[in-house]
Formats: sequence, structure tokens, C-alpha cells
Amino acid sequence: MKRIVLLGATGSIGRQTLDVLSKHPDEFSLVGICAGHNAKELKEIAEAFPSVEVIGLSENKEDITFLCDHVFYGEDNMVQCLQHCDYDLLVNAVVGFRGLKPTLESLRQGKDVALANKESLVAGGVLVKKMLEKTNTKLYPIDSEHSAIFQCLQAGKKEEVRRLIITASGGSFRDRTREQLQDVSVEQALSHPNWNMGKRITIDSATMVNKGFEVIEAHYLFDLPYEKIDTVLHAQSLIHSMVEYNDNAIMAQLGSADMRLPIQYALMYPNRPYLKEEHPLDMTKTLTLDFKEMDYERYPMLKLAYQVGKREGNLGACFNGADEKAVELFLDKKISFLQIEESIEKAVEAATFVADPTLEDLERTDQEAREFVVRYWGLENQ
Amino acid sequence: MKRIVLLGATGSIGRQTLDVLSKHPDEFSLVGICAGHNAKELKEIAEAFPSVEVIGLSENKEDITFLCDHVFYGEDNMVQCLQHCDYDLLVNAVVGFRGLKPTLESLRQGKDVALANKESLVAGGVLVKKMLEKTNTKLYPIDSEHSAIFQCLQAGKKEEVRRLIITASGGSFRDRTREQLQDVSVEQALSHPNWNMGKRITIDSATMVNKGFEVIEAHYLFDLPYEKIDTVLHAQSLIHSMVEYNDNAIMAQLGSADMRLPIQYALMYPNRPYLKEEHPLDMTKTLTLDFKEMDYERYPMLKLAYQVGKREGNLGACFNGADEKAVELFLDKKISFLQIEESIEKAVEAATFVADPTLEDLERTDQEAREFVVRYWGLENQ
Repeated sequence: MKRIVLLGATGSIGRQTLDVLSKHPDEFSLVGICAGHNAKELKEIAEAFPSVEVIGLSENKEDITFLCDHVFYGEDNMVQCLQHCDYDLLVNAVVGFRGLKPTLESLRQGKDVALANKESLVAGGVLVKKMLEKTNTKLYPIDSEHSAIFQCLQAGKKEEVRRLIITASGGSFRDRTREQLQDVSVEQALSHPNWNMGKRITIDSATMVNKGFEVIEAHYLFDLPYEKIDTVLHAQSLIHSMVEYNDNAIMAQLGSADMRLPIQYALMYPNRPYLKEEHPLDMTKTLTLDFKEMDYERYPMLKLAYQVGKREGNLGACFNGADEKAVELFLDKKISFLQIEESIEKAVEAATFVADPTLEDLERTDQEAREFVVRYWGLENQ
Repeated sequence: MKRIVLLGATGSIGRQTLDVLSKHPDEFSLVGICAGHNAKELKEIAEAFPSVEVIGLSENKEDITFLCDHVFYGEDNMVQCLQHCDYDLLVNAVVGFRGLKPTLESLRQGKDVALANKESLVAGGVLVKKMLEKTNTKLYPIDSEHSAIFQCLQAGKKEEVRRLIITASGGSFRDRTREQLQDVSVEQALSHPNWNMGKRITIDSATMVNKGFEVIEAHYLFDLPYEKIDTVLHAQSLIHSMVEYNDNAIMAQLGSADMRLPIQYALMYPNRPYLKEEHPLDMTKTLTLDFKEMDYERYPMLKLAYQVGKREGNLGACFNGADEKAVELFLDKKISFLQIEESIEKAVEAATFVADPTLEDLERTDQEAREFVVRYWGLENQ
């Protein structure tokens, strides 16, 4: 019986994780749940999973202490939950930079992490890498691309990998030139051709910032240099990613967009129990898969992500912090679509480089990047 | 150091196997080679690989006894070589039904087999299966489709497999209807859109008999029921085959048509050392992969292969024997393209079913199927 703590329990990945856990009651015991503000939904989860022993809530002071013995409120609720709980595996499905601290805490305690929180690696990769080595712990990717790579890596050894090939849908504006991006609206940016996702990740797909994040995540998850991480445009998003080996074999993982597959694989690796899905991909039917060479001039954020990733230090935290704030401003219609990119470029240029950052350095960098973006567009007083 | 016996050394797979062996002199020692009639080439191989201790030659009586201590001639040369040789792995790259006997002999001796000889399984699967169980030996597939499946199976467990999906190029006539097959010439049939292969296999691709063989081979190689073996048309032949798991993940292996990859993987499994290739598949470039649902009415031989495979017994030997003879008659312009199919159908219909055949039963069935086809077209006296 694996004892699970789930952070971000009320989000999209969180809910799908609960679905996977509920299908395997003999294998998993959900002992801890945390969420941002949705106390009502946390209550429902605690009722559905009576095994829950600790609960954390970040932003809402609603009294849910009656639900179990240990309820923690406020900014540090997730780390407190991890410290007051006997668990085996952390599922980190938090969105944003605040997901980094609990990842580090879990690894520090010697507990593996199933990771959906991108920022743990994009902003905090340097620290996470050190902690993984120090405590001999493991990360299991929850993300269709990295799960695909993880699955493809089962067919060979790391030292035999020539390169990873991460597929990119191209996002909402993949058929537009850069000139045609001048006046795109928030509504247009939010209509992703392949998936219905959260707002930030949909915008991050359109700018390819998200693919840049995935390149950095892949670097840390699979401990491979950036020279061995490549990308390709694949409009249908049916091949979730590939691994090319030294013997020229390319392994690919295909499937529908169902996130429960990577979740289940991360939780139950290396097992693949039956997963009920209404519309699984059927590769015996008539269909077409298109691939197009990546255009790094069309997608400068992807190019920047490689540079930021290679320089390492605190630049990932700056890249992420600037993007979080810029996307927020774009969604609020304070800046234009192309100004998201400009925000990030300028923030990274302006950042004070810290080669070997502490968590505090990363927190400061994150904060400074956000402030920089606001100041850059003269929006301090709004 | 793995000691290798290579049968069919002068054929296409044989020569590519020698290329792979020559690249890894510290891993392999070639101790035995057999071929049909090409004594000159066998001499060259024996000179290039001084480790060779036994040589077999089927059809040519040229004296090559000076080359090494043990030279065997005639029909039983392969089995004799295996009996007079200390080896670890047999590479069976023989073409045709006569490849079955050495496969059985090697397994009987407790030696694994890297198998390119289709007939060992299509005609002799029942016997090979028994021998594998009895001597606890293994088969390693040398064939792009089955190697792909073998590679994809590394990412899961056999009991988690929902189905294998074997890709089929569709052969020389994939864009023609059955009506348009009436008057196709030998020359048209021999021009395969994707590869330059031997004559028989090119014709077998056009009739889809070859894909039917692969379905039967997959059944025995991976010990899965026919209900779990599916096919799909894939014109570009870049995905070599796929495995779909119970969790809806589909693993695929892609690559160029270089047969040295499956050969090397079979010989060095699970290792993937560097393999030099001029034009490896580059999945970061612009390209398209098309898939089309299999049409079993268009390709009745594939449908028949499933039926023959499921009924088992001696029917595979009949299916193969009839095909070998019918293709020979087609290449000699004695029968038309569609008459190849008719030959096989009628031969299978006419066969006396033997549920639990011996090797002698299979040899008789093979012989009878060939004779049946000749008689069916009234060609006995030609």
C-alpha cells in the first residue's frame, strides 16, 4: 500500500489523480491533500477518501479542522503537511513557483515525487538536482511529453540515447507568421487547437514558452545535456514524444490526450493496469501524422529557453517569474501577445546572474522578475 | 565472447549480419557459416573471419575442405554444422522451408536463435513452440516489424499488452483495386515502392502473404493470441510496428529501412551500441506518416493467414509451400498475379488437416502443397 500526499488536489491534474487513486484502492492510500482556496472541494475529497490524515489550504481561512486531526493554513501549508504526515510518494500537481518548496521538502525527507509542477524544475532545477543526488530519490514525470520519454527510455539505456525529441503542437497561432501575431486577441490566444487546458498553459503553448519549459524539465528529469534535447512540430499531438538511440532506433509513445495515463504511469510505474477511456487512440484507423522542422526564429521563446537552461543558475526562475506575470498582464489586456515575449527577454537580460543560487535567491529572482515586468510596461500604479 | 553460427551467410541478411559482427570483434566470434551454393563467397567470409570452424554448403560440390576442419555438403549440411560446432547463438537467415530443421536443432541443443527465417514459424510454429518450452530457449526476431514489437515490449509486460499493431506498406499495388490487378506484369509486381528486396518477398508484399506470415510469426514469437494481433496500412513504412497496452499507451518504433538495426538488436539485446548509418531517419525534419485501415477484402491472403494461423496444425506449412511454388510460377510467367492467391486458397482447402504434426508431416504437407499448385494449373509436364 503506497501512502500518497496530493498537492493541488482540486486542480485538473489533482482531480484526475484522484480518479486514478480511486480505481486502485488496494494499492494506494491517500493520506494528505492540499489546495489553494477551494475548501468545499477539499471537504468532498476528504469525505470520499477517509484515509486522509492531513489537509492544507493556502488562501481560505474557512474552518475545516473538523475534517481531520491536522489541518494547515497559509503559505507554508504544503510543507507543514509533508512534515506531519507518514507518506511514501508526493504527487505535486501545484501550479506555479510555489510548487518548488514542497518538492524540495519531499526529496529532503527521502520521498520520491510524481511531478506535474513544472516550476520545480524550470525555476528550481539546480536545487532539485542537488537534492535528488543527496537523498538518492526519484522524480516520476506527470506530463504527456515527459511521460512519453520516460516510457520510451524503458527500451534502452541512458548512455545509449542520442537525443530526446519533444513534440510541440505549435499552439493556437501555429499557422500564423510573426507579423500576423501583432494584434491577436486574448480570446484567439485561448483557443488551443488540440486541448482545453488552463489559461496560462494555453498562452504558454502559443508563445512556446511551455515547450521551452519542457526542454528544461527534460534536462533535469532525464539528466541529459541540452545538446541531446530536440523538438519538432507535430500538429496532431498524437506522438507525445520520442527517444532516438545510438543504433538509430527511434521509440515513440502515442495516445489520446488523456492525462490519466501519465498520472497512472507515474504512480504505478512500471505497471500498466487497465485504464478505461471512452476514446482511446486507435492506430489501426485511417489518420495522418504531420511533422515539421522547428522554426526557432518563429518561436524565440524556445530558443531563449535553451540559452536560459544552459546558463542555469537563477535564470530559469527569472524566465518563469517574468512569464507568469506577463501572461497575467496579457490576460488582463494590459499588454499585447508579442509583449509577453518582450517582457521575458528583457527580464532575463536585466537579471543579476547567480551561478549557485539558494532557495532564497530563487525566491528573490522570481519576485524581481515579476516586478521588472510590471515596471517595464509602466504599470506600477495600476 | 558469443560464438555465432550463421546460416544463409551469403544472402542479404547474412551479409548484413557479417557487417554487424565485424563491428564488434570483442563481442562475437563467428564459428560457423552455411550457404546454398555460393562457395566463392563462403571462402571470402572464411578468410575474413579466421575464427570459422565449420562450413556448410547445400548445392555446390566445390571442394572447400581446405578452408577448415569441418565442411559439410548437401541437404543436411546446416544441421551437421550445428552438431559439430561449439556455439552460443544461431543466426538463421536461410530463405524458405529448409530453414525450419536447423532452427529446431539449435533449440533442441538448448541454444537461442536469432531468427530471420520466416518459415520456421509460419510452417513449423507448432514444433518450434514445443521445443522452446521443452528446452527453455529463446527466439530473437530479425525482421523490422517483429524487432519493432520486441523493442516496444520493453516498455511493458506481456500480460499488459492489449494488441500488437503490425504496419504494412501495402506493397507494389497498394493503389490498385482488385479489378486493376487482373493483368499486372511480373515487372510491375517486382517494383516495390519502399524497398529493394528479394523477388519472392517483393511478390509476397504485393499479395500481402508476407504480412500474413508476419502475423503468424508474431503469434509464436510473442506468445499472443491472434485476437491480439492487428495490422494497419502505413505507406511510408517508417513506423515499423506498434504495441498497444491496457493503459491505452501505444509504443512505436521508427527508423529507416536499415536491416542492420534489427540484426544488431537481436544479437546484442538489450544493448544498443552505435550503428553507423548514412541516412538515419530524422524525426525532427518535415515529413508525414499516413495510416489507413486494413482492407481484408482487398487483401484476402492476410485474412486467410489469420484463419490458417488460428487452425494451426499443418496448415501453415501448406500456406507457405503453396505460396513458394505459386510465386515461382508467377515469376516464370506461367500463372497470373491473382492466380497466386487462387493457388494458395485452393491448396489450403485441399490440404489434409493434421492437428499435431511431426516434422515429417510438415515436410510432406509442404511437398504436397507445391505439387497441388503445379497440378491445379495443369503444369505437371512442363
